[in-house]
Amino acid sequence: MPDRLGPPRDTPLFERITLIGLGLIGSSIARAARHLKLAGTLVAADASPEVTARVRELGLADIATTDAAAAVSGADLVILCVPVGAYGAVAEAIAPQLKSGAIVSDVGSVKGAAFAQLAPHIPAGVHLVPAHPVAGTEHSGPDAGFATLFIDRWSILTPPEDADPAAVNAVRSFWRALGSNVEVMTAQHHDLVLAITSHVPHLIAYNIVGTAADLEEVTQSEVIKFSAGGFRDFTRIAASDPTMWRDVFLNNKEAVLEMLGRFNEDLAALQRAIRWGDGQALFDLFTRTRAIRRNIIAVGQETAEPDFGRRRGGDGDGQ
Amino acid sequence: MPDRLGPPRDTPLFERITLIGLGLIGSSIARAARHLKLAGTLVAADASPEVTARVRELGLADIATTDAAAAVSGADLVILCVPVGAYGAVAEAIAPQLKSGAIVSDVGSVKGAAFAQLAPHIPAGVHLVPAHPVAGTEHSGPDAGFATLFIDRWSILTPPEDADPAAVNAVRSFWRALGSNVEVMTAQHHDLVLAITSHVPHLIAYNIVGTAADLEEVTQSEVIKFSAGGFRDFTRIAASDPTMWRDVFLNNKEAVLEMLGRFNEDLAALQRAIRWGDGQALFDLFTRTRAIRRNIIAVGQETAEPDFGRRRGGDGDGQ
Repeated sequence: MPDRLGPPRDTPLFERITLIGLGLIGSSIARAARHLKLAGTLVAADASPEVTARVRELGLADIATTDAAAAVSGADLVILCVPVGAYGAVAEAIAPQLKSGAIVSDVGSVKGAAFAQLAPHIPAGVHLVPAHPVAGTEHSGPDAGFATLFIDRWSILTPPEDADPAAVNAVRSFWRALGSNVEVMTAQHHDLVLAITSHVPHLIAYNIVGTAADLEEVTQSEVIKFSAGGFRDFTRIAASDPTMWRDVFLNNKEAVLEMLGRFNEDLAALQRAIRWGDGQALFDLFTRTRAIRRNIIAVGQETAEPDFGRRRGGDGDGQ
Repeated sequence: MPDRLGPPRDTPLFERITLIGLGLIGSSIARAARHLKLAGTLVAADASPEVTARVRELGLADIATTDAAAAVSGADLVILCVPVGAYGAVAEAIAPQLKSGAIVSDVGSVKGAAFAQLAPHIPAGVHLVPAHPVAGTEHSGPDAGFATLFIDRWSILTPPEDADPAAVNAVRSFWRALGSNVEVMTAQHHDLVLAITSHVPHLIAYNIVGTAADLEEVTQSEVIKFSAGGFRDFTRIAASDPTMWRDVFLNNKEAVLEMLGRFNEDLAALQRAIRWGDGQALFDLFTRTRAIRRNIIAVGQETAEPDFGRRRGGDGDGQ
């Protein structure tokens, strides 16, 4: 698998690309797009003057502005990289400036709500092709991004049924250029798949870190010291951006509650097995889950190094 | 922090050390003890002829045998590195061969049950000093171990109240020599601390991987493809040794059920916040949990690199 981006293109994929929101994802796209020369002109808009100043310092775009409406003027591709809760306001602000034939996309983790919030504002003649690169880290902000973030990860496109195939292909080419694999599915199916592979895992990680923090019999210092026993891995996930994740849960309520219901049922069964000393039930589940790990490594979504190849090749989940 | 073990000792810490069970932990101790020359003679016992053959091939000990009773004869320090469920049988087998003044220790993840199962078999004049190095990876077996596994990790000693201070100090010196920090606490407190920092995290990781595997609307292939959204980290934990973990849950039932009860209460509150759209409650928790992550990094129990410094410096918890 390539660990690096390819060489810069001779001709850009889009004459003008505008990124709105230069956090981890937006700034990673900017870095990769600049390196690969995917845009004739790359425009960065962020509501925060501190962020736009930093974007200029880092040289992440040709133009950096706090004015999203001005930023999309003349753009062929506009990508929203802001929390889903801000979509409606951003879409309303930029709509009058979108040129005919422009493509509007995003990188949000929920796709039903993304479409619902964007679609009413998109003028006729503008193509809406929502997307979600399944990639990230626990860090936030324009300094956290890096150009190789999307390599060998999956980007999911959720175009509406009547989407223009040429526009869908253009977005597909964009994500392929960043090194991603691309899959197309409905927004509804996306939200179900991500509820179990991403949203519920984040929720229970946030939850157990909160539970541990509230214990009166175990000190915080003990929780931190002995975190190598497994807890540590949850804290990484539970360090992800609070605003983004609040918006994920508020905007994928139905699928998250459905998956959480199943998780709770299964956990109740495990709890019962522990209470009644049913070792066979525990052993059977623990054996079955090992196989899934092997498959994830086999398809290249993970390293086989112990403990993710942490310092010294392994100091992880403890016993 | 040292990433390497120090130089070999001029005089061993113990004349004769016997390790029983040469899996991940036992073979890591063997590698480190050999490198550091902590033992005049290092004896390895494992019930599996395949494992003892492999121990010989890897040169992990001076003597490798399937006969635990013979192996402890003349030993100054005996360390059980087998699943907790096997303690009673092993202790009964070795008891007649333990020499007066010997120290018996272990590496098990539950300490109340460890003591309860070992103590009845320990002859007068032999010192029982249970221990738990909070370190490990998701891999098992004699090939999975490595000498630096315990460096900068914590080893917890849980000697009974009437333990011989010299014996406790000897075990402490042993773990310090392997690079560990050492803390002493009661078995009961250990089991409570580890229930929240290790046992419940493992249980919910096993559980969610099982829940995902059983979904009918989402294919296994989708779960695996899009695992970079957070799920992947849980699969690593859920790939840990099934026998060992079955025994942990059967032998730390009370503390695990207590912590699981708290986890469930907190999760119910989060579930309710999602259902009723209480974004502030979600945001407040997600902000609070970030601080705990920072503390874990600050005390050196984790790397600050995004996504544990996976390949390309980050491809992790997704959005």
